[in-house]
Amino acid sequence: MKKFITLTSVLFAVLAMPAHAQFAKPEDAVKYRKASFTVMGAHFGRLGAMAGGKAPYDAKQAAENADVIAAVAKLPWAAFGEGTDKGDTRAKPEIWTESAKFKDAVDKNQAELAKVVAAAKTGNLDALKAAMGPAGASCKACHDSFRKD
Amino acid sequence: MKKFITLTSVLFAVLAMPAHAQFAKPEDAVKYRKASFTVMGAHFGRLGAMAGGKAPYDAKQAAENADVIAAVAKLPWAAFGEGTDKGDTRAKPEIWTESAKFKDAVDKNQAELAKVVAAAKTGNLDALKAAMGPAGASCKACHDSFRKD
Repeated sequence: MKKFITLTSVLFAVLAMPAHAQFAKPEDAVKYRKASFTVMGAHFGRLGAMAGGKAPYDAKQAAENADVIAAVAKLPWAAFGEGTDKGDTRAKPEIWTESAKFKDAVDKNQAELAKVVAAAKTGNLDALKAAMGPAGASCKACHDSFRKD
Repeated sequence: MKKFITLTSVLFAVLAMPAHAQFAKPEDAVKYRKASFTVMGAHFGRLGAMAGGKAPYDAKQAAENADVIAAVAKLPWAAFGEGTDKGDTRAKPEIWTESAKFKDAVDKNQAELAKVVAAAKTGNLDALKAAMGPAGASCKACHDSFRKD
């Protein structure tokens, strides 16, 4: 859990950091964060299918999807550094011009995903269902504000 | 470690499985496996920079990179199902026509990456250096045989 909570300090440090500190080129950061979101979304989607009754509930698979989400969900935020607002990206300028609001949205998302990870590991479908709604809403809220259609 | 070793059975089951069993469309599988490779490559690259003296060695960061590799390295292989040989992919047909050879290359890569993960967690730079060479070679061997330039 702790790693989700302390992400904020990492994020703030990273937004003020040139992208080349972690990535050779800004476009590498863009590619990396999109890849992280793709992997996260795929595994979140599999939990969503179970929670929504579109796939059979399998506690072991749910826990495995949760493990991937736990590992990947913290990754993309380190890749919004300087110079990564351009290129093949749907990132809105507000990520950088309203960085406190972006930080809040990311924090909320990380907290909700941490609940999903915990719920998926209980082996209880109702716990998973309860956690998925708010988490999905927190994904959508950030997309609505900070991602172009 | 065990998850690296038992991957093979998963891979064989998956190669015989229609992509839609795990992905809505074959192109979703292609996008997902490329994303997994991108994330894996970024974190492998960070370990490589430390091992090669291009970045300062930091035991904590090395262990964190290893955690991501451990979570992500097993993912792309589930996304080489039926119908995923087409589209925006550099996958060579040999993945499917020489599936036993592909399986061997993946097994080798998973075994070497498991050694990297273990070495990165020792906190010992020499252990990391020793593991990185064979792991990088196993990435390259698979790319050379099964990925278009």
